[in-house]
Amino acid sequence: MLDKIDLSKKIAKSEYKKLMAPLLLRLAELQRTAREMGIPVAVVFEGWDAAGKGTLINSLSLALDPRGCKVHPINAPTEEELLRPWLWRFWARTPESGRAAVFDRSWYGRVLVERVDGIVKKKEWATAYEEITTFERQLADSGTVIVKLFLHIRKKEQKKRFKKLLENPATSWKVTKDDWRRHEQYDEYVDATEEMLEKTSTQWAPWTVVESHDRRYAAVKAFAVLIEALQWRIAEKTGTTAVRPTPAAKSAPRTSSLESAVLDKVDLSLSMDAATYDEQMDRLQARLRDLEHQIYRKRIPVVIAYEGWDAAGKGGNIRRMVQGMDPRGYEVVPFAAPSDVEKRHHYLWRFWTVLPKAGHITIYDRTWYGRVLVERVEGFCAETDWRRAYREINEMEEHWARFGVAIVKFWLHIDRKEQLRRFKARQAIAYKQWKITDEDWRNREKWNAYRAAVDEMLLRTSTSYAPWTIVEANCKLYARVKTLSTVVQRLEQAL
Amino acid sequence: MLDKIDLSKKIAKSEYKKLMAPLLLRLAELQRTAREMGIPVAVVFEGWDAAGKGTLINSLSLALDPRGCKVHPINAPTEEELLRPWLWRFWARTPESGRAAVFDRSWYGRVLVERVDGIVKKKEWATAYEEITTFERQLADSGTVIVKLFLHIRKKEQKKRFKKLLENPATSWKVTKDDWRRHEQYDEYVDATEEMLEKTSTQWAPWTVVESHDRRYAAVKAFAVLIEALQWRIAEKTGTTAVRPTPAAKSAPRTSSLESAVLDKVDLSLSMDAATYDEQMDRLQARLRDLEHQIYRKRIPVVIAYEGWDAAGKGGNIRRMVQGMDPRGYEVVPFAAPSDVEKRHHYLWRFWTVLPKAGHITIYDRTWYGRVLVERVEGFCAETDWRRAYREINEMEEHWARFGVAIVKFWLHIDRKEQLRRFKARQAIAYKQWKITDEDWRNREKWNAYRAAVDEMLLRTSTSYAPWTIVEANCKLYARVKTLSTVVQRLEQAL
Repeated sequence: MLDKIDLSKKIAKSEYKKLMAPLLLRLAELQRTAREMGIPVAVVFEGWDAAGKGTLINSLSLALDPRGCKVHPINAPTEEELLRPWLWRFWARTPESGRAAVFDRSWYGRVLVERVDGIVKKKEWATAYEEITTFERQLADSGTVIVKLFLHIRKKEQKKRFKKLLENPATSWKVTKDDWRRHEQYDEYVDATEEMLEKTSTQWAPWTVVESHDRRYAAVKAFAVLIEALQWRIAEKTGTTAVRPTPAAKSAPRTSSLESAVLDKVDLSLSMDAATYDEQMDRLQARLRDLEHQIYRKRIPVVIAYEGWDAAGKGGNIRRMVQGMDPRGYEVVPFAAPSDVEKRHHYLWRFWTVLPKAGHITIYDRTWYGRVLVERVEGFCAETDWRRAYREINEMEEHWARFGVAIVKFWLHIDRKEQLRRFKARQAIAYKQWKITDEDWRNREKWNAYRAAVDEMLLRTSTSYAPWTIVEANCKLYARVKTLSTVVQRLEQAL
Repeated sequence: MLDKIDLSKKIAKSEYKKLMAPLLLRLAELQRTAREMGIPVAVVFEGWDAAGKGTLINSLSLALDPRGCKVHPINAPTEEELLRPWLWRFWARTPESGRAAVFDRSWYGRVLVERVDGIVKKKEWATAYEEITTFERQLADSGTVIVKLFLHIRKKEQKKRFKKLLENPATSWKVTKDDWRRHEQYDEYVDATEEMLEKTSTQWAPWTVVESHDRRYAAVKAFAVLIEALQWRIAEKTGTTAVRPTPAAKSAPRTSSLESAVLDKVDLSLSMDAATYDEQMDRLQARLRDLEHQIYRKRIPVVIAYEGWDAAGKGGNIRRMVQGMDPRGYEVVPFAAPSDVEKRHHYLWRFWTVLPKAGHITIYDRTWYGRVLVERVEGFCAETDWRRAYREINEMEEHWARFGVAIVKFWLHIDRKEQLRRFKARQAIAYKQWKITDEDWRNREKWNAYRAAVDEMLLRTSTSYAPWTIVEANCKLYARVKTLSTVVQRLEQAL
């Protein structure tokens, strides 16, 4: 998903001071509180070379009371350090209560540079994911706040920055041969980074990707994330269920507007004419029927999950998906609010029970992602519940994938204007009126909250074993062909 | 550790009713409360064939309100079930809120019978440990109480029971060829079971070994453990920090007296005469010095951990351990109550920092096990903290072992009478008086609480990578030879 993140976000110079001033005040205030309450804080900076880690760490340590904060630059382990288990040097540097430790690179080197450069064996870095989440859980369980920031820039931007540094004799030494080598390995690092984000984002130590093309935007986001994490922990410790922001915090930018945006990059102008559509659909539907029989013979179970905005066209899309299929091989299961019986079970239970058996297909019309979408936005579950859910969902999907389930997940995306057009059309046409309810209009009011939830969902649950496909659905024809061809590809790959 | 558990515990027939009556009342009471509060309960029964699972499950389901309880007998997966990920059938059977699900065998079949019989590949059952802890964590996080009981009998006892069943034509059908085959594989199952207990005992779903040679004892213990778990969860949910037992519960046997006892089996009469001692020590000390140089050359780090009763002779033992060693190769680090600086860190931090580098030896005089011994008994940390610590400690030691650290852990064991004798002797001899403090006498008062803590520690933290050695220390000479020879053996094995 890294390649899909919108990196165009900017904050103008004129606005920057206005935004930062209250953040600095608030951070100082929270640091004092954390100190008094004896809360240890660990801030991890990872990211691309020249993404601006140095500058950002600098401003952070200026903002924090230096007596309560220590920066740890992490390089390759020394000889002394190599003589101990690899986490030893990080345990030694864990912050004491009331102090902050800022890590300029960190234990994640094990699964990034040491992995890509082949310094450690596959078995070692593969084990490290668990060792890292264990390490962080132990710290978090004893009260440490852990904030992990990944500073993200694209390969092109990195090259531009390297060149700029080289042009100036005062900075040219900063770009080393190793930097260029890693630049060449950008794509390998993307793979390693995505796996790292996927395997080590836990509710006790989640990753935040910081869009760093614009340094001002990156600074505001990094500060806001740190502030939010501190507020959260302090509130938890004082037993206040909700975080009560002080006046200074109120004027701070809402972090929801700072979420990484994947949806912004979606090109909703994509469309398809009827003739192409007809031709493609005929071909794909025939192909799918064929594949359906093949996966039956090969005993491959298939999960197709549909999520999307109200009126994004899920129903029609699913109808066309199954049109040519053999009904003995698939089942469409729609999910709405849980029934009484379902409510009495774990929220994942009702999705487990209809899991297809090997050789069969289940199409989920709305899914377990309700936990991090509607339940999150409408407050149907506690914040800790939906925060924990990203990991629980990944774990469930990984378990399925390990058994051999082919998982395809669709987010049907339309923009707000298109939704309004469709709502109005539904109201105008008598036989479509049942499709539009007051609830739809209410949900529409919360578009931005939903959007933030969708962005976070796409980032946190797009995994190697169960990736999301974002479907540009302003044009229904285009959307139907895209979903169908995605399923066809996925099945071909599974066979 | 399974072979070291004391299985001789008995409850007389005359006492049984007196003990069970309040337990039955209390359980019914707690089940009602759990039902009203919507708490789901999962009880897992695993254990040896003929250990008495059936009888016990029967009495349990009679004690519980049948409308709120369902027994799930788990056999080999059906064809239908084999067509899904292996946890599917257990997800489908998870209890709904307010209900209890009793599993007669369970998802642990994956790492027991399916492992030993080679039904699943090593990769599959090795992965299952994580899948199981994840599954249980997800249930626990959503509020399910999980109680896991392993009914333990010895091979000889199993044979006796099989024979008895065979003698009676009404029961002879119960003993199958498979049962005999598994009986022959008893030792293989011990290995699998010990690994299972080690890898899947979490603070959210701990294992309890139920000594089942005596059926009455087993029943009382199983009921008491279930009651304790329910009380704990109800107290947690109502926000009462301590469990306030109702009158019925007060007359119930304290579960601490039901802890599995390893120490009971220790033969404290073991001793050694001075001549043998001198001869052995000379030989072993010379050998250790030689090994010390070899591990230096091979760069193997060594951790020797000493725990034991006050006056068990740790100091003198350590002195003899290092007497012949090259002082450049080892360090003895004594640990008492944490300093101010240490208190401001994670409780494991101070043990990490003095970890030996490769090729060196650190002897810990008292250790990280203080968390589950003195801190537990004296209430220096919360119950959740020490309960969590077993897993944290295992994780730390596993991380060390993976790097190649050879870990030797000693529990120096004496009985209460011997301790008293030594205390008095210390008081009598002027130059030894500093060794005996008021605190020692106070600790002595809590002998039983400490003993329960030691038993639980030995059971929960004796792992394949860091096993405990219990040292019979009533005779100091014997103890010194045993620790020294254990270290020698461990180093020979590591080289």
